[in-house]
Amino acid sequence: MTIAVLSALIRPAIEPRLPDWIEPRWFSTGEELMELVGEAEIGWFDLYDHAQMAEAVRQASKLKWFNSIYAGLDFLPLDVLAQRGVAVTNGAGINAITIAEYVLMLMLDYAKGYRDVVRAQDRREWLLDSPGKMELAGSRALLLGYGAIGKLIDTRLKAFDVDVTVVRRSAASSADQTVLGPDQWQSQLGDFDWVVLAVPATPETDGMIGADELAAMKNSAVLVNIARGTVVDQDALVAALQDKQIGGALLDVTTPEPLPADHVLWTLENAHITMHLSGRAQDKMFARSAERFLTNLGRYQQGEPLEPIFDPARGY
Amino acid sequence: MTIAVLSALIRPAIEPRLPDWIEPRWFSTGEELMELVGEAEIGWFDLYDHAQMAEAVRQASKLKWFNSIYAGLDFLPLDVLAQRGVAVTNGAGINAITIAEYVLMLMLDYAKGYRDVVRAQDRREWLLDSPGKMELAGSRALLLGYGAIGKLIDTRLKAFDVDVTVVRRSAASSADQTVLGPDQWQSQLGDFDWVVLAVPATPETDGMIGADELAAMKNSAVLVNIARGTVVDQDALVAALQDKQIGGALLDVTTPEPLPADHVLWTLENAHITMHLSGRAQDKMFARSAERFLTNLGRYQQGEPLEPIFDPARGY
Repeated sequence: MTIAVLSALIRPAIEPRLPDWIEPRWFSTGEELMELVGEAEIGWFDLYDHAQMAEAVRQASKLKWFNSIYAGLDFLPLDVLAQRGVAVTNGAGINAITIAEYVLMLMLDYAKGYRDVVRAQDRREWLLDSPGKMELAGSRALLLGYGAIGKLIDTRLKAFDVDVTVVRRSAASSADQTVLGPDQWQSQLGDFDWVVLAVPATPETDGMIGADELAAMKNSAVLVNIARGTVVDQDALVAALQDKQIGGALLDVTTPEPLPADHVLWTLENAHITMHLSGRAQDKMFARSAERFLTNLGRYQQGEPLEPIFDPARGY
Repeated sequence: MTIAVLSALIRPAIEPRLPDWIEPRWFSTGEELMELVGEAEIGWFDLYDHAQMAEAVRQASKLKWFNSIYAGLDFLPLDVLAQRGVAVTNGAGINAITIAEYVLMLMLDYAKGYRDVVRAQDRREWLLDSPGKMELAGSRALLLGYGAIGKLIDTRLKAFDVDVTVVRRSAASSADQTVLGPDQWQSQLGDFDWVVLAVPATPETDGMIGADELAAMKNSAVLVNIARGTVVDQDALVAALQDKQIGGALLDVTTPEPLPADHVLWTLENAHITMHLSGRAQDKMFARSAERFLTNLGRYQQGEPLEPIFDPARGY
């Protein structure tokens, strides 16, 4: 029997279909997890408290396979997982659809000034002109990151006739895609109406948008961040928004989260804050994760490769 | 010389490029228009006051070609235009891009509960879960109307992996499109998550969504109207929204417009009202109309067909 320590949240979705070689141990709280974790060969340890989740991983000394519903695992002791040779599967792609939908929603809302329409409706005021007058069609977007989320954003942007340039590690343009490499995009930042961040949180992407990049953007350009708050130098962003160096920032992620009520970002009319909700704006996450986990259990037993594999040494 | 009576609003865009056989007479107000209209062979009479615009058309007894920036011309004396054999060109397609973008924005906003995110941001409150949890992907839409706007909505919905069924006068499904005829869609209304109205305002479409159609829709279904308020029996819609017979209504158009501040529609949380702004949410309308008008001037002189022709007898 193989001991699997699993969150009670996913129990209804997977218990009836667990194979008989698995001995499940369910936890509902962080405390219960801490008691069980030392015996786990397989672990699905998701906790809202990321510090406690990290501690559980540290104490899981018998762990061979760690699974999570989260795509970004930068808050875990990745060095420990790498050193112990633990196989890690993450939630990459589980939330990709809703996040891509959210990005288009935020861009459309900005383009049409929809927030002011909502506020007018709340006042029962019939506006005579649109607060926003931009079309997505014909605009130019720089899309940084081309993983599961980036790919879905790309196809949706193109359906709106947005001219998309993708930044990838390996630059190779084709007939239907313009691609820039990691060292090529900075010098072209001034060409874009939208700069969309869909990169993983790694040391390499940490602060990749700083004062220089913001200064290089058009005055009307809009930064969209659905990656991690740390990908942007937030102090530089606040200054750029205050000085109208850029048009606006659509921020699903901030530093820190939650953003304190007295933080200056809340006060800037050109900062749209959506509280890291993009991935949560769907109800299929548990069903999709459970399905994927059960498939991986079969692969694990057969010694086949698990999918999608997260490389703790690489960070994505 | 051919006398053309033209709105001063479009003067900057077209005056430098008018051919020399045109004698332009510019008007800035409805009163000025009324003084000039009797001599007009060519007229571009757009006024915000539609009643006065209709009166101008009635008095334009020498008119051979009437042009408008508007797509829907149901407020004009179409019988008079038909009887006099006036060639009519309208703004069909001029606003199509922004309206299609608006439809997707409204659907995404509804799916993700974005209005409540805006309100939370205004309170500086960090929401812990998304107020809306729907994905467009995998949902089913019935799209009524397949003109310039309907076609653009269709391609955008499909990019979001929405399963689209189109209603057209001539039903002919193909590999990549399911089409229903004018008498086929009512019996299938219960299959759809979205019912999108993009039909022209004609006697045939007047009140096409009434109590029976609303009752046949899913309890969770959402009605999207960017056509005309009159396409929907609004009293029946209010009742359906109050009784939660349907999930919601995304209304760019209402009856009347502007909607009075004390109208019950404003008070319904499941009615999202956007004040006929969808077509105004762009700044390219004048440039596009001017370009089209100048091209049509050349055709008019050569006796070639004008585009796009609006048939006053048909109403679209």
